[in-house]
Amino acid sequence: MELEENSIEIDMKGEMKLRQPLLVKNRRNHTSQHAIVGANICPIESLDYEIIENDLFKQDWRSRTRVEILQYVSLKWTLVLLIGLSTGLVGFFNNLAVENIAGFKLFLTNNLMLQEKYYRAFAAFACCNMVLAAVAAALCAYISPAAAGSGIPEVKAYLNGVDAHSILAPSTLFVKIFGSVFGVAAGFVVGKEGPMVHTGACIASLFGQGGSRKYHLTWKCLRYFKNDRDRRDLITCGAAAGVAAAFRAPVGGVLFALEEAASWWRSALLWRAFFTTAVVAVLLRGFIEFCKGGKCGLFGEGGLIMFDVSSAKVAYSSTDLLAVISVGAIGGILGSLYNFLVDKVLRTRGPSCKILLAVTISLLTSCCSYGLPWLSPCIPCPRRLEDHCPTIGRSGNYKNFQCPPKHYNGLASLFFSTNDDAIRNLLSSSSDGEFHLSTLFGFFVAVYCLGIVTYGIAVPSGLFIPVIIAGSSYGRLVGTLLGSHCELDAGLFSLLGAASFLGGTMRTTVSLCVILLELTNNLLMLPLMMLVLLISKSVADCFNKGVYDQIVKMKGLPYMEAHSEPYMRHLVASDVLSGPLVSFSGVEKVGNILHALKTRAHNGFPVIDEPPFSNAAELCGLVLRSHLLVLLKEKKFTKLRVLMGSADLMDRFKAHDFGKAGLGKGVRLEDLDIEEEEMEMYIDLHPITNTSPYTVVETMSLAKAAIFFRELGLRHLLVVPKTPGKPPVVGILTRHDFMAEHILGLYPHFNPHE
Amino acid sequence: MELEENSIEIDMKGEMKLRQPLLVKNRRNHTSQHAIVGANICPIESLDYEIIENDLFKQDWRSRTRVEILQYVSLKWTLVLLIGLSTGLVGFFNNLAVENIAGFKLFLTNNLMLQEKYYRAFAAFACCNMVLAAVAAALCAYISPAAAGSGIPEVKAYLNGVDAHSILAPSTLFVKIFGSVFGVAAGFVVGKEGPMVHTGACIASLFGQGGSRKYHLTWKCLRYFKNDRDRRDLITCGAAAGVAAAFRAPVGGVLFALEEAASWWRSALLWRAFFTTAVVAVLLRGFIEFCKGGKCGLFGEGGLIMFDVSSAKVAYSSTDLLAVISVGAIGGILGSLYNFLVDKVLRTRGPSCKILLAVTISLLTSCCSYGLPWLSPCIPCPRRLEDHCPTIGRSGNYKNFQCPPKHYNGLASLFFSTNDDAIRNLLSSSSDGEFHLSTLFGFFVAVYCLGIVTYGIAVPSGLFIPVIIAGSSYGRLVGTLLGSHCELDAGLFSLLGAASFLGGTMRTTVSLCVILLELTNNLLMLPLMMLVLLISKSVADCFNKGVYDQIVKMKGLPYMEAHSEPYMRHLVASDVLSGPLVSFSGVEKVGNILHALKTRAHNGFPVIDEPPFSNAAELCGLVLRSHLLVLLKEKKFTKLRVLMGSADLMDRFKAHDFGKAGLGKGVRLEDLDIEEEEMEMYIDLHPITNTSPYTVVETMSLAKAAIFFRELGLRHLLVVPKTPGKPPVVGILTRHDFMAEHILGLYPHFNPHE
Repeated sequence: MELEENSIEIDMKGEMKLRQPLLVKNRRNHTSQHAIVGANICPIESLDYEIIENDLFKQDWRSRTRVEILQYVSLKWTLVLLIGLSTGLVGFFNNLAVENIAGFKLFLTNNLMLQEKYYRAFAAFACCNMVLAAVAAALCAYISPAAAGSGIPEVKAYLNGVDAHSILAPSTLFVKIFGSVFGVAAGFVVGKEGPMVHTGACIASLFGQGGSRKYHLTWKCLRYFKNDRDRRDLITCGAAAGVAAAFRAPVGGVLFALEEAASWWRSALLWRAFFTTAVVAVLLRGFIEFCKGGKCGLFGEGGLIMFDVSSAKVAYSSTDLLAVISVGAIGGILGSLYNFLVDKVLRTRGPSCKILLAVTISLLTSCCSYGLPWLSPCIPCPRRLEDHCPTIGRSGNYKNFQCPPKHYNGLASLFFSTNDDAIRNLLSSSSDGEFHLSTLFGFFVAVYCLGIVTYGIAVPSGLFIPVIIAGSSYGRLVGTLLGSHCELDAGLFSLLGAASFLGGTMRTTVSLCVILLELTNNLLMLPLMMLVLLISKSVADCFNKGVYDQIVKMKGLPYMEAHSEPYMRHLVASDVLSGPLVSFSGVEKVGNILHALKTRAHNGFPVIDEPPFSNAAELCGLVLRSHLLVLLKEKKFTKLRVLMGSADLMDRFKAHDFGKAGLGKGVRLEDLDIEEEEMEMYIDLHPITNTSPYTVVETMSLAKAAIFFRELGLRHLLVVPKTPGKPPVVGILTRHDFMAEHILGLYPHFNPHE
Repeated sequence: MELEENSIEIDMKGEMKLRQPLLVKNRRNHTSQHAIVGANICPIESLDYEIIENDLFKQDWRSRTRVEILQYVSLKWTLVLLIGLSTGLVGFFNNLAVENIAGFKLFLTNNLMLQEKYYRAFAAFACCNMVLAAVAAALCAYISPAAAGSGIPEVKAYLNGVDAHSILAPSTLFVKIFGSVFGVAAGFVVGKEGPMVHTGACIASLFGQGGSRKYHLTWKCLRYFKNDRDRRDLITCGAAAGVAAAFRAPVGGVLFALEEAASWWRSALLWRAFFTTAVVAVLLRGFIEFCKGGKCGLFGEGGLIMFDVSSAKVAYSSTDLLAVISVGAIGGILGSLYNFLVDKVLRTRGPSCKILLAVTISLLTSCCSYGLPWLSPCIPCPRRLEDHCPTIGRSGNYKNFQCPPKHYNGLASLFFSTNDDAIRNLLSSSSDGEFHLSTLFGFFVAVYCLGIVTYGIAVPSGLFIPVIIAGSSYGRLVGTLLGSHCELDAGLFSLLGAASFLGGTMRTTVSLCVILLELTNNLLMLPLMMLVLLISKSVADCFNKGVYDQIVKMKGLPYMEAHSEPYMRHLVASDVLSGPLVSFSGVEKVGNILHALKTRAHNGFPVIDEPPFSNAAELCGLVLRSHLLVLLKEKKFTKLRVLMGSADLMDRFKAHDFGKAGLGKGVRLEDLDIEEEEMEMYIDLHPITNTSPYTVVETMSLAKAAIFFRELGLRHLLVVPKTPGKPPVVGILTRHDFMAEHILGLYPHFNPHE
């Protein structure tokens, strides 16, 4: 940064290529233009949600015929349908693969145990896990580091307007799918929902690329999708489809996408997301119907309801409410502690030895899963369940493990199965008294800690399932503790415990409520569940932010909050501007443009009309770097400083030539090949200048400007002077200028916590 | 309007009190400043959601201490809690009153019928109905005409930024509660959910008034709520609480408020609305517990689930899907026909004879309810149900009516009970074959037509229940027709029919889905329900708009859509400006201000600084009518044209003196008492001028400006010239300038349907 600044000053003094900047301020924005995506540091860029009203676009916009609009609308629905179908398919495949791989692993171990070859059983178990873990980590490390972690923070940041090349790349999609399958099958305490959200978003991004020249997929209609607004809509639908496929919760998926992931909502978007998740639901229902009778292994057990607790009777007295309230409050505290610890662990972890770390943690997990049950006593099977107890070689409660016949090992029932089965066992209400207090306590502590250390290893790892497992074991623990003092049974307490943990970590409300309903099919629990969510969220909000918000911040993604900070009220827009501002004249020298593009990282430049093209200096608009590059590539220069008009340009260009290509796909600076004599020629920027950029007056309070910026989803916000003067623009506000680090760096006396 | 215009011109020529308007255009905005609220025409006004950054406000904003912010936040939560509690209480009372009044009425009639006094039974039945109808209509006609109808369109318009004094007045609240009770008890085919939404909004508005000077409720903290932004949030929560209380559907309530009612969503608002409805749910759960064992009559049957169908087995083959799809498609067509007919009926109905109309329709309803069952044959009770059939003198299926013992009258089971019971009968799956085809057909036609003619009489009348009844009888009809060709039973078809009708009329998706789930407690139906909603909404969208949107339009409420119309792309902002523009100087003569306030209906005036206060004419900001009135009332004038500064003013005023009072409560023009010599004195407008109003350049396309206006929820949008010139403002855009009637009036060659 410093180096760049010097080189410009030398340039200015030496060759004076660059016009004197309008605003030379010592002030610089030092916030990073890089952030952690997945496991690697990447350059980031803002997205353009603004309608870029330049001549070419307006021409295209106005001339759209009815047929073209119809094409656009029907294509958008088609894409959404395809997104739903693909995400549903991936969800099905994911489920199937995990169930079968994990099933084979457990079957193998179980067989060895039945032969009483306990060490060999452990070796087989641990080896399977470690190999799977190593493959998942290797995929992440060597193919796409962006696929590590949950993916929800990245999707959230993307939908807030921050892009990085790798967030939604095809390679990320590939690794996310297979990495998640191997990671979950390896027995890690991780879930597949976060990765499914990311997968859905990647699929949507793939469909929303507007065709591909490389593969000759340039159907004319696809060009309408070459803009960030339409892509945003598609990706929101993709995220919704991801949740819907992971949890088989279509309505919850829509709500999760809107409450947690998306930054801008519209009713039309809700409707479209609903359509996508309905497609997923119908598809999954079809697969489940198809798989009936064990054709696909364990897939589809429980139908669309993954953890059915509808059989449980819900009756509670007002005294039970007290217990429920304390479950919520303690769950909130534990949830916020979880967030705190996840954050701490993520921050201490270096970028090196990704595979080794994954293998180590896999070994630790194997030790816990296989070792801890040995500490648990063998319990005789209850009389009434002699047919079902113990279960050997199939999923279900009452695992036999090392116990003699007609006995079962409580801890093994939880540890020695897939995460989904463990949750099912914890929530089931038919098994009152199955788990002893010590069993539940041991399981809770182990899972809570494993969940924390596991998140953030270089494997696609969702946070939902770890939190639900820890929460439901905590709830069941409380339920068992209270025993007969309470009318609610332990299974329902387990559900409430899961709700309290989710509320305490995720901090969403409506979507969690609906997801839990769709998972458990017990509407009668709704008032209690709402109460628990309310309390746990309120309690946890006293300590820290939601886990995704924390991770977004930790990763350095410049997320725009929906509200302004109190200290912004004391500042005005011009207080945080950083200079120097580089602007172009309406008809500008090619050399100047090229120089600015080379030496500045800015993506938008104000265009100022000056005499003889206007009476006085006036703001013509804003021009984007990407548009300048396309224009320069065509080399339509003039010797003299004259207006060229847009008619001429329109013959050469179509509006979609300026459509936004996927990140890294547009014209790059290195692609230009401008010769020395052309540097002194002129080019008319008017046809590609957005003539109605959003402006605010320099005296607007920063708080108001921040809300303005956020609500309209801007990338550049021009600041104009209060008093009409020579320079018609004072500066440009970008996302980075609203970040706390920048503002508090300039004005350290403000207290951000006030 | 015309008269006013003349008087101004005479004024200008005669006394020249008014400065020459900056922009004298012949163009006028002729859109009405009045709209139909409930049953009467009222003047309407826009709401101020913008942060009015004047000196006084900024001072107040910045000086808020931590304690004050904490007070504000905790008070907001307290208010939301109170809203939830009050709405829950009203919902409980409403239910109780309806069940008991209607129960008494049916009991009376039944007794007379058992004595075979059929004519007297009819007389008693019809008289009860007509008296109740007359009382409800009289309440509406004489106390608050704004309470007529559903209320959802009015709440929707309010949350979009359109206010009318009576929309949320206390008298409206009173009439809405009692009118709805009497209307529903009178046996009209109307529901109580629309009125409950309106009731919730009224309660929220009452709490959000920021105290009342009249009743000495001016607690200091309440002043923070004297603005439209906070009121909007509270009223959204109130609307959510209303749905939650009416349907006992807390999550559905939140989603309905956000999807249908609210125009602006924020995650924080979602969370607050969720809290409100959770309070309602917990409260209702408590009441139901309390009422167990018949303490409160029929209230609370079914607990929180009003129409439980969870017992029904859901199994369907792919051939059944075909039937379901056609149910959705035909339901969509019938739903859009319903909208069309409701609109037609509303438009033909004059404003006169409200009570007579209500009584006539009541008589018609009574004739249908009592008369049509006579046409239905008596059916012998099924063997297996001898204990439950026929039911005499209590709610339930298998009404005896005029039939001999051990026989029942199918049509009477539907007609001769409350609407809720009719729905319960239609949805119940244990009663396959209870209703004959002819019975269902007759009921469907009667209810469909009655629903259409009843809506819009001067009685609080919700649309949900009529649509659900008609839809479920349609669905049951189809289910019975298909009979054994289909695996799904008639009760589930009934549910799908209701979903298809709701989708076809309301056109919301996610919220309907959740509401239906919460009403019926059958999550296994979710994929089918989503499918039906999707299809019916898509089909119906081909014909017309949703019923609430239609009514909003019919009532003339200037609703800002979230999207721009295609013809707006061809226009720029200055094309729709209407003149003349009245502006003030920074230090203005009192007489000029007074004259402008008297002769213009505008609510915002640009303030322009001129020499000697600035070097050239420059835009200082925007001043609001309400602020001017408060300032003028204080009579802080100066003899000379000098700046007074805000320090002096701040001693006299507190920021909350300028806080927005409830409609009709602020200082009025008539309250001012300015003497002749004071007219020639000056007043400094700087301290109350919003110095950072939102501006757009005159060349911005109208489409972009419309989205800008809508997303930020503006009332005034200043249009500035492209080229810096003498007048720094070209005009002001308001909500009315974006209305299709205005734009298409100016440019009739645009086709709005293209």
